[in-house]
Amino acid sequence: MLTLYDYLDSGNGYKVRLLLAQLGRAYRRIELDIDKGETRTPDFLAINPNGRVPTLLLEDGRPLAESNAILCYLAEGTAFLPAEPYEKALALQWLFFEQYSHEPYVAVARYVARHLPADHPRQAELPALRTRGRQALQVLEDHLASRAFLVAERYTVADIALYAYTHVAEDGGYDLAGFPALRAWLERVSRQPEHRGLFDVAT
Amino acid sequence: MLTLYDYLDSGNGYKVRLLLAQLGRAYRRIELDIDKGETRTPDFLAINPNGRVPTLLLEDGRPLAESNAILCYLAEGTAFLPAEPYEKALALQWLFFEQYSHEPYVAVARYVARHLPADHPRQAELPALRTRGRQALQVLEDHLASRAFLVAERYTVADIALYAYTHVAEDGGYDLAGFPALRAWLERVSRQPEHRGLFDVAT
Repeated sequence: MLTLYDYLDSGNGYKVRLLLAQLGRAYRRIELDIDKGETRTPDFLAINPNGRVPTLLLEDGRPLAESNAILCYLAEGTAFLPAEPYEKALALQWLFFEQYSHEPYVAVARYVARHLPADHPRQAELPALRTRGRQALQVLEDHLASRAFLVAERYTVADIALYAYTHVAEDGGYDLAGFPALRAWLERVSRQPEHRGLFDVAT
Repeated sequence: MLTLYDYLDSGNGYKVRLLLAQLGRAYRRIELDIDKGETRTPDFLAINPNGRVPTLLLEDGRPLAESNAILCYLAEGTAFLPAEPYEKALALQWLFFEQYSHEPYVAVARYVARHLPADHPRQAELPALRTRGRQALQVLEDHLASRAFLVAERYTVADIALYAYTHVAEDGGYDLAGFPALRAWLERVSRQPEHRGLFDVAT
């Protein structure tokens, strides 16, 4: 059986949980509390030397890290990852956009606002994070103004990856009122078969 | 013919130039000066709404952004991207590591040190950037201590992506003296057939 090293509040972990549920694949989940340093223990660093969740162990125990690499691995050969070369490349384009231009602002603002004390020095980063995060949300809004899903007009891993932190962006102080196409897309994603919420663990 | 919107000093652009040279593929290169705002013009934003180089135009004019997505698209079906599912997933793992844990520190430190004035307020970010960048370099060092290349014991897009900014890390104030396995790997990568340097444009 697959084993997922995970942290329930992590949107990156949620991506993998959501796809596993939608693929109907059973897995064992091991919770590591990031705030308590449980991803920095020698035992876990032996599995993922970069010390991050999610990390997947395949049935034979081989490890795979990086949420979006895990999505591609699990989705290969299924409807969740396009087989047509240009569509597949666009799915990857959005996965890299998510990790470089979206997650470091949308997810990190949520982390600072939700996990750090109100008097923590990193609270001062929030205005700059939110400026960059809104730019990423605007790129999504403009793209989705004329499309139902991010790639190939159907639900793929690109939607899963971008949905994960966008649907809880308000936790980080983002107001989605000015992003109507984005909100309609969030609703469409949430209506996909076997959808799960962030804390709705299907094990 | 392929068209590459590019910026010569960009390691992200260099990744694509290096792979195109090693694939023996001809392309037209259009230089956009990031420092002069040439990636933020209405004409370029119509091609890549996220306003970044490299962006590739396929022969039929369809655009593809994100350097590592471009690498995967061009390398699909060649020796530069493993076909075996787990090896392919590990290549993607390293490409996402590069964009999330390496480039934002190793490349951004180089950008601040090289492109911004000595009295620019962002110079104050350098110590924190270098701390995180050294952590990423250490992950590479530990991995390469027992391996010739990052994945599958052969040269792949994962090596191209990590080589791009690592081989000019010293521009950003990183000292590679304490990373012997990393330096040996840089040397191995530089000896691959049809290798090109950062500013060595083969058009």
